[in-house]
Amino acid sequence: MKNIFLLGATGSIGTQTLEVIEKEKYNLVGFSAGYNIKRTIEIIEKFKPKIVSIALEKDFLSLKELYPGIEIHHGDDGLVKVATFNNNDGLLVNAVVGSVGLIPTVEAIKVGKSICLANKETLVIAGDIITNLVKEYNVDMVPIDSEHSAIFQCLNGENRDEVEKIVITASGGAFRDKTRDELVGVSKKEALDHPNWAMGDKITIDSATMMNKGLEVIEAHHLFNIPFSKIETIIHYESIIHSMVEFIDGSVLAHLGLSDMTIPIAYALSYPNRIMSLKKLDFDNLSSLSFSKMDYGRFPLLKLAYEVGEMGGIMPCVMNAANEAAVELFLNEKISFLDIEKIVFNEVRSCENINNPTLDDIIRVDKEVYSSIILKNK
Amino acid sequence: MKNIFLLGATGSIGTQTLEVIEKEKYNLVGFSAGYNIKRTIEIIEKFKPKIVSIALEKDFLSLKELYPGIEIHHGDDGLVKVATFNNNDGLLVNAVVGSVGLIPTVEAIKVGKSICLANKETLVIAGDIITNLVKEYNVDMVPIDSEHSAIFQCLNGENRDEVEKIVITASGGAFRDKTRDELVGVSKKEALDHPNWAMGDKITIDSATMMNKGLEVIEAHHLFNIPFSKIETIIHYESIIHSMVEFIDGSVLAHLGLSDMTIPIAYALSYPNRIMSLKKLDFDNLSSLSFSKMDYGRFPLLKLAYEVGEMGGIMPCVMNAANEAAVELFLNEKISFLDIEKIVFNEVRSCENINNPTLDDIIRVDKEVYSSIILKNK
Repeated sequence: MKNIFLLGATGSIGTQTLEVIEKEKYNLVGFSAGYNIKRTIEIIEKFKPKIVSIALEKDFLSLKELYPGIEIHHGDDGLVKVATFNNNDGLLVNAVVGSVGLIPTVEAIKVGKSICLANKETLVIAGDIITNLVKEYNVDMVPIDSEHSAIFQCLNGENRDEVEKIVITASGGAFRDKTRDELVGVSKKEALDHPNWAMGDKITIDSATMMNKGLEVIEAHHLFNIPFSKIETIIHYESIIHSMVEFIDGSVLAHLGLSDMTIPIAYALSYPNRIMSLKKLDFDNLSSLSFSKMDYGRFPLLKLAYEVGEMGGIMPCVMNAANEAAVELFLNEKISFLDIEKIVFNEVRSCENINNPTLDDIIRVDKEVYSSIILKNK
Repeated sequence: MKNIFLLGATGSIGTQTLEVIEKEKYNLVGFSAGYNIKRTIEIIEKFKPKIVSIALEKDFLSLKELYPGIEIHHGDDGLVKVATFNNNDGLLVNAVVGSVGLIPTVEAIKVGKSICLANKETLVIAGDIITNLVKEYNVDMVPIDSEHSAIFQCLNGENRDEVEKIVITASGGAFRDKTRDELVGVSKKEALDHPNWAMGDKITIDSATMMNKGLEVIEAHHLFNIPFSKIETIIHYESIIHSMVEFIDGSVLAHLGLSDMTIPIAYALSYPNRIMSLKKLDFDNLSSLSFSKMDYGRFPLLKLAYEVGEMGGIMPCVMNAANEAAVELFLNEKISFLDIEKIVFNEVRSCENINNPTLDDIIRVDKEVYSSIILKNK
């Protein structure tokens, strides 16, 4: 029976991960939760974990009283406690949103845990450090993002030297049929209305700005050790092809399936095996898969992500932190949709790069950029 | 440098195989040709083989005089001479059309040659015998059919026990948009006008009747050791997805590429490596991939192939021989397009099965069925 440690259990990916854990009778040894104490208690009651961490100190105090037999923690440090519990005995599923996912991933790798990674920020802001650690500690890192899971599966049994390019598909998000002029004044509600996927708020906004695809491009660069010049994106309306790999001989392998995150989650948890699922593509009613060329003028944040990815150093961290802050401001209705782009561009353009940043550099710059943007827009 | 033996060098697949051999500077040690003596001489001049076989005795005599330094053979026996030349030193590419491909494949396996198989009849009529020989002599058998090459590639690095089903795509052939009523009186010229692929005459007619897909279903059953109940077919209009594999977890891997046979040919010749090709899918202009459910009422020969495949024994041989004869009669304008179906159905319905047929049974029945149909329709 697999032992699982889950960070971000009350979020969208976390909830679906719990579905898989329950169905497969995996053992949830520990988890972290955010602000939903009611749901946290439900998870504890159902899965009987040994260690739990929760965001706020007041919730931590309540849980400690309620569950004296369980090791309870809170805050950023609590995430690390969960991630490193019992050393290498189990998988870490990192499903927290944002840069807060970085340090727990680093510490889990250092105790020898393999990682199922839904927290793309980990690789975006500290890709070089993480990929080196993965090699050094010889752990597996299996992506949970549907696009990266697709690419990972297309590369099974293949020689990486024979990859011509990776083609990441993008639904286009909530506003794919709008011109840039039509984006003026779009509401939070409209931006959260994704055509194909039911996901958390942050990633749904990132889909609408195409920043999400930019983060995925940088994630793919690190995960598959492939230059940016060999990573393409394409609009694919139905989100049935989750991504593709082209090989030097003209062969293209693609991964298809329902737009259901439990499929890549189950793949990551059960890797290298596959587990039974009833969530199957209905071939009898498959009628059309449509595509269009990515328009970088329409989606400037995606173009910026390529640029920032090529620059490397601290720049991906700056871009990501600026975006995290801007999306939070948009979700709190402090700024307009198009302000997200403006804020991210301003920050990246005004920042000086740091080559080969340390983890400390990354954490410091991440906090500085994020806080300064939040403060400026209070 | 790879040593290659090519059966069927003057046919459509043969010609494209020679392109790959030339481009990759592989060594064509031997080949067989049909009735095109001019082309045969060109191939000899360009590739300087050590052994050549040609269909007719008169051409054999000419070649012997022209090329005293080359070992020259003719007829069915000549195919075996080429296939077994230098024992296991080289790959056999079997690109002849029809059941004549069977015995050379058997003999090549017995001397230890790995097989690149474009001659689907080999597996259709003697699948059990061939797959046992492949195991016994521990050789590779890599398919050249685009559909089977696609499936083969989707299975790379995967656990065969985790396959849920195979989905073979079908363009629908020349008459896919015609009703059965509209098939009355269609001409040979119309039937040879395939929408997506440039192929030999026999296979182009088999595409129009959907018999080709039926033969492919039986071929896939043997090649991938998968029950017929797990093999589906689907109409895919653009022939860009060459086939798909669904796994138990809901993941589907698909192989995409141009409709160009040099891609699967190069894959089979270079296996397990891939070689550079400039024949790439143009993602910038990829707009739509469309599908529809296979209509077995519209294409009764495909339904028959499943039935015959399940029956096993001598029945696939009977169906294939009847079809070979009927297509030849149609190409010689002796019968109508819809007569092909009638002849194949009649033959299968009137035949008694032989369980576990020997190679001799298969060769005898193949000849009997074929000759009797040709004679009846003289």
